[in-house]
Amino acid sequence: MAKFLIVGGVAGGATTAARLRRMDESAEIIMFERGEHISYANCGLPYYVGDVITERENLLLQTPESFKKRLNVDVRIKNEVVRIDRENKLVEINDLINNTSYTETFDKLIVSPGAEPIKPPIPGIKDQAIFTVRNVHDTDKIKTYINENKPKKAVVVGAGFIGLEMAENLHHLGMMVTIIEMAEQVMTPLDYEMAAVVHQHLKVKNVEFYLNDGVSQFKRETDHLEIQLQSGRKVDADMVILSIGVKPETKLIKDAGIELAPNGGIKVNEYLQTSDPNIYALGDAMAFPHPITGKYTNAYLAGPANKQARILANNLVLGHKQTYKGAIATAIAKVFDLTIGSTGLAEKVLKKEGISYVSNIIHSGSHSGYYPGAMPTTIKITFDPKTGKLYGAQIIGYLGVDKRIDLIATVLQKGGTIYDLQEIEHAYAPPYSSAKDPVNQAGFTAGNIIEGLVNIIHWDELLQSHAASNFILDVRTPEEFELGQIEDAVNIELDEIRNHLDEIPRDKKIIIYCGVGLRGYFAARILMQKGFTDVCNLSGGYKTYE
Amino acid sequence: MAKFLIVGGVAGGATTAARLRRMDESAEIIMFERGEHISYANCGLPYYVGDVITERENLLLQTPESFKKRLNVDVRIKNEVVRIDRENKLVEINDLINNTSYTETFDKLIVSPGAEPIKPPIPGIKDQAIFTVRNVHDTDKIKTYINENKPKKAVVVGAGFIGLEMAENLHHLGMMVTIIEMAEQVMTPLDYEMAAVVHQHLKVKNVEFYLNDGVSQFKRETDHLEIQLQSGRKVDADMVILSIGVKPETKLIKDAGIELAPNGGIKVNEYLQTSDPNIYALGDAMAFPHPITGKYTNAYLAGPANKQARILANNLVLGHKQTYKGAIATAIAKVFDLTIGSTGLAEKVLKKEGISYVSNIIHSGSHSGYYPGAMPTTIKITFDPKTGKLYGAQIIGYLGVDKRIDLIATVLQKGGTIYDLQEIEHAYAPPYSSAKDPVNQAGFTAGNIIEGLVNIIHWDELLQSHAASNFILDVRTPEEFELGQIEDAVNIELDEIRNHLDEIPRDKKIIIYCGVGLRGYFAARILMQKGFTDVCNLSGGYKTYE
Ligand SMILES: Cc1cc2nc3c(=O)[nH]c(=O)nc-3n(C[C@H](O)[C@H](O)[C@H](O)COP(=O)(O)OP(=O)(O)OC[C@H]3O[C@@H](n4cnc5c(N)ncnc54)[C@H](O)[C@@H]3O)c2cc1C
Ligand SMILES: Cc1cc2nc3c(=O)[nH]c(=O)nc-3n(C[C@H](O)[C@H](O)[C@H](O)COP(=O)(O)OP(=O)(O)OC[C@H]3O[C@@H](n4cnc5c(N)ncnc54)[C@H](O)[C@@H]3O)c2cc1C
Ligand SMILES: CC(C)(COP(=O)(O)OP(=O)(O)OC[C@H]1O[C@@H](n2cnc3c(N)ncnc32)[C@H](O)[C@@H]1OP(=O)(O)O)[C@@H](O)C(=O)NCCC(=O)NCCS
Ligand SMILES: CC(C)(COP(=O)(O)OP(=O)(O)OC[C@H]1O[C@@H](n2cnc3c(N)ncnc32)[C@H](O)[C@@H]1OP(=O)(O)O)[C@@H](O)C(=O)NCCC(=O)NCCS
Ligand SMILES: [Ca+2]
Ligand SMILES: [Ca+2]
Repeated sequence: MAKFLIVGGVAGGATTAARLRRMDESAEIIMFERGEHISYANCGLPYYVGDVITERENLLLQTPESFKKRLNVDVRIKNEVVRIDRENKLVEINDLINNTSYTETFDKLIVSPGAEPIKPPIPGIKDQAIFTVRNVHDTDKIKTYINENKPKKAVVVGAGFIGLEMAENLHHLGMMVTIIEMAEQVMTPLDYEMAAVVHQHLKVKNVEFYLNDGVSQFKRETDHLEIQLQSGRKVDADMVILSIGVKPETKLIKDAGIELAPNGGIKVNEYLQTSDPNIYALGDAMAFPHPITGKYTNAYLAGPANKQARILANNLVLGHKQTYKGAIATAIAKVFDLTIGSTGLAEKVLKKEGISYVSNIIHSGSHSGYYPGAMPTTIKITFDPKTGKLYGAQIIGYLGVDKRIDLIATVLQKGGTIYDLQEIEHAYAPPYSSAKDPVNQAGFTAGNIIEGLVNIIHWDELLQSHAASNFILDVRTPEEFELGQIEDAVNIELDEIRNHLDEIPRDKKIIIYCGVGLRGYFAARILMQKGFTDVCNLSGGYKTYE
Repeated sequence: MAKFLIVGGVAGGATTAARLRRMDESAEIIMFERGEHISYANCGLPYYVGDVITERENLLLQTPESFKKRLNVDVRIKNEVVRIDRENKLVEINDLINNTSYTETFDKLIVSPGAEPIKPPIPGIKDQAIFTVRNVHDTDKIKTYINENKPKKAVVVGAGFIGLEMAENLHHLGMMVTIIEMAEQVMTPLDYEMAAVVHQHLKVKNVEFYLNDGVSQFKRETDHLEIQLQSGRKVDADMVILSIGVKPETKLIKDAGIELAPNGGIKVNEYLQTSDPNIYALGDAMAFPHPITGKYTNAYLAGPANKQARILANNLVLGHKQTYKGAIATAIAKVFDLTIGSTGLAEKVLKKEGISYVSNIIHSGSHSGYYPGAMPTTIKITFDPKTGKLYGAQIIGYLGVDKRIDLIATVLQKGGTIYDLQEIEHAYAPPYSSAKDPVNQAGFTAGNIIEGLVNIIHWDELLQSHAASNFILDVRTPEEFELGQIEDAVNIELDEIRNHLDEIPRDKKIIIYCGVGLRGYFAARILMQKGFTDVCNLSGGYKTYE
């Protein structure tokens, strides 16, 4: 009878325990959780704070009792594993209820301790009105604070997914919310021009934000906190959420002399086995080679943790048969009315990694324009300029973002190309898509770039390039042109262009743009075939440029 | 300068013309359309009838004028191509405006004539209150009839996608709607138990339907039609929509001696070239080997037609470089509040084709149960019992059906397996999915079946199998059991099963069921590992059985 010990009782740990039991009815399985709860919905926590999820018990998918009953797993909450003795294959546990300590032996040890919110040593950071959000206990504290103090003004430090979800939920409770972010943009997985759409939306929603700025001090005043920023700016707050990132819980593993990856996560092989063959790791704390860069990275996502768990349990019971292939970091967040999805590598990462790439942006409708309710959707993809191999995608919109990021992720995960995007046979009826889905269109436009049917220029390149040597051609209608245009642009409407070729200089670089890129592409095709040699189309059109 | 003639000016034809022009600015392109309109949104027609799409002009994506202006294509509406002279590479055209006839030569001829609604020779079928829905003209007639006659009672004959869309839209206008369908179910691409969900929904929506019944006569009474059914039943109607299927428009091609496929469609090779190397075909009229069965089939779908068009245009300009790979028939329809998606081969088709398969049904939520608004979703997949290669999927639900059918279609299209479904790294946040998406769960459950971790039984097999040799075990809670159960079932709740093993006979076949299949699977795992040798779990649980 095999004896499995599991450290951590939530996404990675509990899911491993569940599959282990289904695979092996007779194994001894003990799951240690240092907190009070197991199997809770981490991802639901912001919504519980915001009263979108109203029942606390709905967050608790399993309890120690239900886990025992249904899965016959020995769950020990408020039990912290504090030391691994690899030689004797045992762990030392602090029983936080009885303040005692004991040991437990194992055949195999599974470690899924997660990651903890980063709390830098900023003066005043220990104030009782400053919170992090990791577990049910944290949200209990936040909710109690809100109920007792009725805060009116909240500051969220750090504008990642969790920070923005918290901002939305505090706003939903009626608070005035200010976000403070060190980077030049919210949401690191996005490139700047995509994040800009989120910035715009936050403004519309009356959420204040300061970018390129960090906290230098939290100063307690009688009834509020004064937050002093590195820029010198001061912001008042009744409460603060710190969401500036997480770091993997690796102390236990490190102390046991088990190998860490260069990025600081717990290094595992494709069977999720650490450098000690009897110890396995998964979840947020674990580092695995990224499928594209090959560099060890942590995923910090619930989906991968859950899937790793099943693979791990299979391998523990059946032997090393199923390999884990790594996460491409497919993520999504609702930010007010927007949905923001991303997968794979952003342009800025590709740049940093020195991987040669092309990126392109398209704007489409979430479904056929003639059927009511279609909403704008922006898709940016990055890909190999020669083979078309997909590197990443970012999608922002209101409807159907989830489906499109899933589709691209599925192709990307299999090493697919933009040609695979062209071929996707999606389900089409007017309420759901168009005969060519935006994902197909992303593939078509990318194909045109690779095959040299069109050259593109990006908004930032256009901003940098020198105007005198360029002829900037706006192919929108005169009405659209009137409403706003790029400096020095000349307007010749697409439908008239064949009759006005002599008004376009042959000795200049022709930079064409339209609203979103489509008409510009059509115009570029005409000019390129009419002997204009240096023609390019603005990726994403005026909409992205603006 | 190449000269291309195109027959048909809508999905296949117009899209080919557009891409041809972008690929070759100097080609001569003439597009013939026998009707009054080009580039119209066929798929939007039912919604235009139902006043969901309110502007007629929104259906007309392009006009002959705009096509000329933007794409420099010579569009000739009300011009019907009536004969192909292959030897002289010319076609004969009837100009329906001037009632004249003329010829036009070609280098390449592209044929996308579509398919026409079937109108069997039923007595009375020519009545002016009986309509088919193919083009804008048809819906103009329907709308005029509705405006002038204010029909109260409509009958829809044929319950395919278009029939059901029409039923919903006429119902939306306030009519009492009755559907008549020859088959035992609505929506042929679905298997019976999935269609049953639609039947249920139609009842809820107060749409009457008669299955297993056909029309024997339409009898004109003074102010209405009496529809006599083969069963002897009579149904009155103020108007009738005939939507019993379509047949490809192949006369032109057949008369020219060009090869048809065994199924009657226009046979093409992977370059979409007919048996005449100068003539190409695409769209509804074209037949191509099905990627799984290898049999020639027509797609009758706008997505494939649009994608074929682009491939075809590429091959015409660049030479035969890009191959078409066939359609797996991914389709979707909104039927009132339900969304119904399907892709690949249904169980009944696999049975008929003699392909060995397994099918499985799961019920999940559209997103995490703890986040508000999650809706039930039912997924049925069919797959190879050994390799797990995917054959088909059917999904019914209220939210996110489109995304999940697209995901499975994308995997299926590439020859993927249920193991690929397990690995899909979807985007997860509570409003969009669960940490394990229902599509992952479909893969997990299928994997468990293939690997012999569980045996399943289907509702129809259970109905047929002899009760005395079976022990039917209901593992739901006593409360659920009280509300309804399968005959002769014994209730032992899952969480208690380990303590009641001695109440379960070892000499009988144990058929376990629960609500949806999940707890039944857990119970099966326990029993199988406790020495029970003949154990199976009811696929889809009581929900599907019921
Ligand atoms: C607020 C929030 C929102 C999120 N939203 C999303 C989302 O929308 N989508 C998404 O994909 N992901 C989301 N995540 C991330 C997701 O929850 C994690 O990726 C996932 O839970 C990681 O699983 P894990 O098992 O590694 O860690 P956890 O689920 O955090 O579990 C680790 C557990 O181990 C316990 N533990 C640690 N050390 C010990 C020890 N020595 N002894 C005993 N117990 C120990 C900890 O107390 C903890 O309960 C969110 C996370 C948070 C905090
Ligand atoms: C009501 C309705 C709803 C639909 N809904 C959906 C949906 O939701 N999703 C989906 O994927 N598909 C749907 N379809 C199917 C989709 O519209 C077709 O698959 C697609 O239009 C086929 O393209 P095609 O070019 O082959 O034929 P069509 O688009 O029908 O175009 C063929 C054209 O050729 C013309 N023509 C034929 N013969 C000649 C000739 N000899 N000379 C000149 N012109 C000729 C015809 O007049 C016709 O206009 C729907 C169809 C209908 C009718
Ligand atoms: C609650 C928890 C223990 C459940 O783990 P689990 O039992 O493995 O997962 P699920 O409830 O999704 O069930 C999946 C199992 O049911 C099976 N299943 C699902 N639907 C089924 C159906 N209709 N019929 C039969 N089996 C079904 C799957 O095959 C799978 O079993 P397998 O792994 O043995 O193949 C675990 O997910 C957990 O702790 N979650 C909370 C923490 C967390 O994930 N947080 C991050 C997200 S907020
Ligand atoms: C209207 C119609 C002629 C348009 O054909 P089309 O121009 O090929 O199709 P789209 O309007 O989708 O445009 C697609 C082109 O724009 C390009 N494109 C799309 N978005 C772009 C963007 N943001 N920037 C640059 N190019 C873009 C695509 O790459 C593609 O060009 P390509 O094929 O040369 O690569 C044709 O689709 C039609 O007749 N439709 C109605 C009939 C029909 O389909 N009915 C069934 C469905 S209801
Ligand atoms: Ca750039
Ligand atoms: Ca069956």
